[in-house]
Amino acid sequence: MPGQDFAYLSPMVFDYESRLRRLRESMRERGVGAVLLSVGPDLPYFSGYEAFPSERLTMAVVTESDAVLFLPRLEAPRVPDGPFEVRAWDETEDPIRLVAGSVGRPETVALGEQTWSVFTLALQDRIDVGWVSSGVLIRDLRMRKDEAEVQALATAATQADAVARRLPDEIRFAGSTEAAVAARIREMLVEEGHDQALFWIVASGPNGASPHHEPSSRVIERGDLVICDFGGSVHGYRSDTTRTFSVGEPTPGQAEVHRVVLSAQQAATAAVRPGVPCQEIDRVARAVIEDAGYGDYFIHRTGHGIGLDVHEDPYLVEGNDLPLEEGMAFSIEPGIYLPEEFGVRIEDIVVCGSDGPITLNDSPRELVVVE
Amino acid sequence: MPGQDFAYLSPMVFDYESRLRRLRESMRERGVGAVLLSVGPDLPYFSGYEAFPSERLTMAVVTESDAVLFLPRLEAPRVPDGPFEVRAWDETEDPIRLVAGSVGRPETVALGEQTWSVFTLALQDRIDVGWVSSGVLIRDLRMRKDEAEVQALATAATQADAVARRLPDEIRFAGSTEAAVAARIREMLVEEGHDQALFWIVASGPNGASPHHEPSSRVIERGDLVICDFGGSVHGYRSDTTRTFSVGEPTPGQAEVHRVVLSAQQAATAAVRPGVPCQEIDRVARAVIEDAGYGDYFIHRTGHGIGLDVHEDPYLVEGNDLPLEEGMAFSIEPGIYLPEEFGVRIEDIVVCGSDGPITLNDSPRELVVVE
Repeated sequence: MPGQDFAYLSPMVFDYESRLRRLRESMRERGVGAVLLSVGPDLPYFSGYEAFPSERLTMAVVTESDAVLFLPRLEAPRVPDGPFEVRAWDETEDPIRLVAGSVGRPETVALGEQTWSVFTLALQDRIDVGWVSSGVLIRDLRMRKDEAEVQALATAATQADAVARRLPDEIRFAGSTEAAVAARIREMLVEEGHDQALFWIVASGPNGASPHHEPSSRVIERGDLVICDFGGSVHGYRSDTTRTFSVGEPTPGQAEVHRVVLSAQQAATAAVRPGVPCQEIDRVARAVIEDAGYGDYFIHRTGHGIGLDVHEDPYLVEGNDLPLEEGMAFSIEPGIYLPEEFGVRIEDIVVCGSDGPITLNDSPRELVVVE
Repeated sequence: MPGQDFAYLSPMVFDYESRLRRLRESMRERGVGAVLLSVGPDLPYFSGYEAFPSERLTMAVVTESDAVLFLPRLEAPRVPDGPFEVRAWDETEDPIRLVAGSVGRPETVALGEQTWSVFTLALQDRIDVGWVSSGVLIRDLRMRKDEAEVQALATAATQADAVARRLPDEIRFAGSTEAAVAARIREMLVEEGHDQALFWIVASGPNGASPHHEPSSRVIERGDLVICDFGGSVHGYRSDTTRTFSVGEPTPGQAEVHRVVLSAQQAATAAVRPGVPCQEIDRVARAVIEDAGYGDYFIHRTGHGIGLDVHEDPYLVEGNDLPLEEGMAFSIEPGIYLPEEFGVRIEDIVVCGSDGPITLNDSPRELVVVE
């Protein structure tokens, strides 16, 4: 499918050769003879090229000696210069056969995590090896951002912040539908420089109690809290921020819940430093919310890594004892969701610095009153 | 990831119970004990619910006796009423374990075609069965559209046609970038009633020689041909149409190539009737283009099926001898791509009727001259 929901990275900014070198080191260490990458963020991480999700297979094959990108001939003109040899296949060729023929005879092959199962099963029929998910090789690389990547995330965050700042001035919430506000957020992200908007949650009043609420035809009213959670990408790197607004003056109850969420968000952020386990950040946020008596209403993890994908490692969730390292980037986004009443969520992207958090978002976090 | 690039179908229009009944018939015929569906169009075909592509697994399990939809708790409020029992999992639960526990002990399990490999491999580790791709069960069902589906495709096509008709009047091509024209097309699709725009190719001048060209910052000039190929979805069903415009009067060479493509497109459409093999439609289009001496420049298949996905069975491509049947819906979109010069493509969605083609698009196909 032709589509423009794809990001193109600049080969001038990111050092694909060095990333590929580190991938091969990891392959040798783990005895993986070939890595096959298709749709999803792994392929652009190594090549600057993102595959079309399509029944026409795009697949990169990385072995010790070769890096070949198989793709449909009609996509070939879109591939930027890079470390991969491009092998375009014609409409009547069988790309599974081509990929299988290029893998060699390793004992273990790693497969990109988002590869479609129709291709996975076809490859398994053709290549008799052990299969592992590419995450074991690539997660460690992608999780630790270098300076250019942090810069890319900071650029994306700054643009998303600009949208958050514009909302109180440019949107009349009361009387608008959630869908109308969402449509403007989508446009604003592009106006601020995003290559694309990717999500735009607007959850008002009782709809705020559903964390992934779909913007609806509900008309926003005075007295509502409105959760706006949106993001997109710039040169492939993602933004993701959430602010909660009050349409007219909040009730004491609404203001109280917002204060609790903000305390949790700030406490969790302050806890970020190298060596702290991911789950500890979640525990810090959760403790603040539990202490305030809202523990049952914080129904999701505290955050997720972010980079070329909007959700990636590391996840700030109970059970993840991975220690934070300098360069890891993730959301911190606690929330309280009161069924049939309202919800509050506050989200920043935070990078683990050498001695503490570096917060990439800086639009106002307090409960801003809007019209 | 929260996102709005998802379609929600109306349970009032589509008979999910009957679809599920036919799936189970097919499972019995083929000895498949369970079907696992995740991201992609199969799940909404049976439930009206489309899974978020996410590291948080959404997976429906269909067995002879049960239909259960496992999904992250924070997505649960989005599920419409339907034939599936909803089982929301919490952030610290392991959804792979839950799915594996619900499959029973069949010999063969079918897996949705777009399921991420990270889940495929994890399920294979946990469930020791034979795995097949769900296409063998579901392709036949989805390929044959019923009346409500044809109506949904017709609605989508009519809205896309409205955009095609507006382009000559509302867009000043000369002096605009491809990206700016693409942005307007995207907006217009939504203005005309689409739930979402999904792709918007604008390929001008020499860029037209790349069938899946990404709209760029190239400024369109007088003398260019401009291929506009766009679509999106309405209640989940897709639109996809292509028209080629001439910025100012075309040269004789441009007009000639356009005439050839239009002849090929019309001849291929006229050849549609039940019993004709898919590849025959491709051959008819190709013969017209080859006879005119442009055979080397028609570098893709003639068409693809369309429904809840923009590319699905049946494919109109050499090697596919599947006979057309009443209710099959597909694009017919021959093109000629002259490297470094220009390209032409004309695309309609066509349904195979009981005694011939039913063309869903009807915006002008001739080479419309624009400013």
